[in-house]
Amino acid sequence: MTSPTPVKERPPITREGLLARDRADPLAPFIDDFQLPKGVIYLDGNSLGALPRATPGHLGAAAQHWGEDLIGAWNRRGWVDLPIRVGEKIAPLIGAGPGQVLAADSTSVNLFKLLHAALQLRPGRNVVLTEPGNFPTDLYVAQGLTRQTGARLRYEAADSLSGALDGDTAVLMLTHVDFKSGRAHDMAALTKAAHEAGALVLWDLAHSAGALPLALDAWDVDLAVGCGYKYLHGGPGAPAFLYVAERHQAAVQSPLSGWFGHAEPFDFAPDYVPAPGIARFQCGTPPVLGLAALEVGVDGVAAAGVDAIHSKSVALTQLFMELVEQHCAECGFEIITPRDAAARGSQVSLRHGDGYAIMQALIAAGIIGDFRAPDVVRFGMAPLYVRYADMWDAVIALREIMQSDTWQRPEFRVRATVT
Amino acid sequence: MTSPTPVKERPPITREGLLARDRADPLAPFIDDFQLPKGVIYLDGNSLGALPRATPGHLGAAAQHWGEDLIGAWNRRGWVDLPIRVGEKIAPLIGAGPGQVLAADSTSVNLFKLLHAALQLRPGRNVVLTEPGNFPTDLYVAQGLTRQTGARLRYEAADSLSGALDGDTAVLMLTHVDFKSGRAHDMAALTKAAHEAGALVLWDLAHSAGALPLALDAWDVDLAVGCGYKYLHGGPGAPAFLYVAERHQAAVQSPLSGWFGHAEPFDFAPDYVPAPGIARFQCGTPPVLGLAALEVGVDGVAAAGVDAIHSKSVALTQLFMELVEQHCAECGFEIITPRDAAARGSQVSLRHGDGYAIMQALIAAGIIGDFRAPDVVRFGMAPLYVRYADMWDAVIALREIMQSDTWQRPEFRVRATVT
Repeated sequence: MTSPTPVKERPPITREGLLARDRADPLAPFIDDFQLPKGVIYLDGNSLGALPRATPGHLGAAAQHWGEDLIGAWNRRGWVDLPIRVGEKIAPLIGAGPGQVLAADSTSVNLFKLLHAALQLRPGRNVVLTEPGNFPTDLYVAQGLTRQTGARLRYEAADSLSGALDGDTAVLMLTHVDFKSGRAHDMAALTKAAHEAGALVLWDLAHSAGALPLALDAWDVDLAVGCGYKYLHGGPGAPAFLYVAERHQAAVQSPLSGWFGHAEPFDFAPDYVPAPGIARFQCGTPPVLGLAALEVGVDGVAAAGVDAIHSKSVALTQLFMELVEQHCAECGFEIITPRDAAARGSQVSLRHGDGYAIMQALIAAGIIGDFRAPDVVRFGMAPLYVRYADMWDAVIALREIMQSDTWQRPEFRVRATVT
Repeated sequence: MTSPTPVKERPPITREGLLARDRADPLAPFIDDFQLPKGVIYLDGNSLGALPRATPGHLGAAAQHWGEDLIGAWNRRGWVDLPIRVGEKIAPLIGAGPGQVLAADSTSVNLFKLLHAALQLRPGRNVVLTEPGNFPTDLYVAQGLTRQTGARLRYEAADSLSGALDGDTAVLMLTHVDFKSGRAHDMAALTKAAHEAGALVLWDLAHSAGALPLALDAWDVDLAVGCGYKYLHGGPGAPAFLYVAERHQAAVQSPLSGWFGHAEPFDFAPDYVPAPGIARFQCGTPPVLGLAALEVGVDGVAAAGVDAIHSKSVALTQLFMELVEQHCAECGFEIITPRDAAARGSQVSLRHGDGYAIMQALIAAGIIGDFRAPDVVRFGMAPLYVRYADMWDAVIALREIMQSDTWQRPEFRVRATVT
């Protein structure tokens, strides 16, 4: 990965220059694969990825298969294999070999399964180690599971996690890219540190799968979960995924032992016998429509290639930060996303005490990012449909909002349910 | 409910008479609301309900909302309320007042949540009582959960469940309509018996919701789960639903404590605080596409009315049994579905040692039912799209297959993955 080039060595950034950069962008053709509203710059793909143009047709085809083949479609249309098939397509995007990834349930449900698995694999240890800034649903699920199992959830600041690993630690549970700041943990190093302490790792890849190069197998990761609706463009509430390293699979059972995780689900046998391999982490009947939509998004990421996506992500986020420094230096923002490209995800986060109102004003101006309490204005750069010139337009719009005090209008201060 | 009229008092059944009956059927107009392949009689709606014609358009609209409104659709299009909204639409179909039903996750995952809740509500008791013929995924989930919690899963034959309830029983967990035989438990009586023993009930409504009249509130049911893809026509792997009686909600937490069950999910607070009411049983981000499809199916059932659906269900299943007795008396079938309409679901099951091959031959002839090992041939009557004349055509086809020995052809003996 590249370190940021000092600004002073570069020629001044101009909108024309960025338009030229867009024209030369090898990923430019992929923008047309997404359906985006006119007049909008969408910098919230880290909350909900945009709609691939192919998705409505693929959904329609799935519905047609349902209508034509009815129950027979489970075999004839391969529905029964969808969780594995989509999982196998996600695997290379996260550096996983075959037989280790499954598309199923939600990220929260999958985290419950794998946290339970981690505690099974380390029976003499009872601590789940995490950081207080981990994504709330991860913390909530861990709070519930540790209460049920008698394990203990221990919080340690992000920078001192290695030192907190000890003989009680069963598993280090972290989200790779912090949802607020965009800071990325060093997954390889922390995994190694956990292993040296005899602990396992469970990584949440919600903000990295489809955006950052990952090497789960090479880094010796044990367990991971991830989200289908952010950089994988699977649609609102898309099925999530999970990864269990092959070496652990035979030794663990899913706590959610539903029939699709059974060795022979259609034998209707009275006793649960887990399927060999990753299939044992299935639970109920797979959500065919959701998986059909997710498959389109995953195919798009695979076609572009994660390395190309990440190169553009680094360039977009660096450009955005430079433009903020150049044009919004007097606006009171603090850039809280790491300047080191190796230490950040595909987003830029700015801290400002009036962040909520500022983001509402930006959204009203067609620049869609989001706000995370108490004071973070967040911009996600999904490289498949975000342009270099968008960075210019977004930052200039931000400057205009700040200079004109537009953001101080009362309507921008009313909180919506979901932001 | 009506008892079956003895056959001898009726005029002989003819296909012409049944066509006239179809013309007079008040539910006849609903058949056009479903898209069914030509030349097929579909008697497997208890495995996967047929496609409502409105579903592809509704799915397309949901995708369009995603494309147009992006992250804003969570509020603007009411996505955030979908699990509750669809739950509130299911509620009257099962005799539940408002604030008690939620559409979410799979039946298996919901069963895990509510079985856990039942054990929380009866802390001094550790037995989950069920019958060995309960649907396998219910047994599998209960086997997993009892192992995790130290509770015990006790099996008792369907006819002696009341006598098996004792001071150790925390919860009686049953499926209302048996998936193989179609026999329906007396939910009101068993719920009363469980309560008299100080136990709770957890009913699986997979084969009854949308087909049979249910009165969960009036019968004082504690907990229930159900399936979205059978008689609710929600599509393959549709979101399931759960019911928690209002009186229990405040006292239990979901073991799957994900962010959508939090009191304030978008505050991103560090600690889990369950939402008031039924919303606490949500876990991860709701599957919008699946919920959109499910809503169409549920709306269709509500428009027809469960009582009208059930009247036709009773008539169809009784007719089918009479026709089997008249036309297939020499074919070696045993009708294992109860003749008492109050004691059966919307299906007829026949026992035959060569059931698998017979069903394959029937399917090849365009009569789609299914087979359940070791020897059950199963016909589900979904009254919204099954005609009286279909019963005639199916039974005559069955007779021809048996008389011509078509079913003995080798290709009908090869097992498919899903049946």
